[in-house]
Amino acid sequence: MTDKDTTLRFDPAFDANGLVTAVVTDRTGALLMVAHMNAEAIAATQASGEATFWSRSRQRLWKKGESSGNVLRVVELRVDCDQDALWVIADPAGPACHTGARSCFYRRVDGGALVPLA
Amino acid sequence: MTDKDTTLRFDPAFDANGLVTAVVTDRTGALLMVAHMNAEAIAATQASGEATFWSRSRQRLWKKGESSGNVLRVVELRVDCDQDALWVIADPAGPACHTGARSCFYRRVDGGALVPLA
Repeated sequence: MTDKDTTLRFDPAFDANGLVTAVVTDRTGALLMVAHMNAEAIAATQASGEATFWSRSRQRLWKKGESSGNVLRVVELRVDCDQDALWVIADPAGPACHTGARSCFYRRVDGGALVPLA
Repeated sequence: MTDKDTTLRFDPAFDANGLVTAVVTDRTGALLMVAHMNAEAIAATQASGEATFWSRSRQRLWKKGESSGNVLRVVELRVDCDQDALWVIADPAGPACHTGARSCFYRRVDGGALVPLA
């Protein structure tokens, strides 16, 4: 057990790029998407109540739904033992995936093949 | 939409360290842990049916439960749109967290404080 495991102080363990992993599910536990947050994105998420990430490809703050309107309203934020991952429980206003799928996880892995989920 | 979004070929988008993010939930959608897999870990997971990760801290292949016995039996493996994250749906043989908690996410974030979950 380390201090990160037991502390009641929120002290994210950012990686070399200043990021933690952010996992988004809805209230039922359906995994919607995985993205990353830096300190600024965490602060924006907490202030607005809508999930905001750091876009690694665009290298900028990215509020989910800023263009599509499909925001993720935060119900609860949780952190893992070593504080390098966040669990965002959210009510999605629409599809979470840029493909239009409800979840980014719309294919299961079967060996080297992918099978679309019903 | 890109080829990664639509292909039915499993072609993980490894990062500069050769890793993808692996999110583990149980069948109910409870988020148990977040870790990383390299190609070897994915192959071991698929071959054994038990979740195997790449330990970044120890820089070695790490079968979850190898010492504790708390293995994660894989029910289904899913991949996200851009294939840089995996969703491992698993039956846990015991606590997923090294602290003894069922899930690594045993604290919610309230501003700058953490609140233990019941």
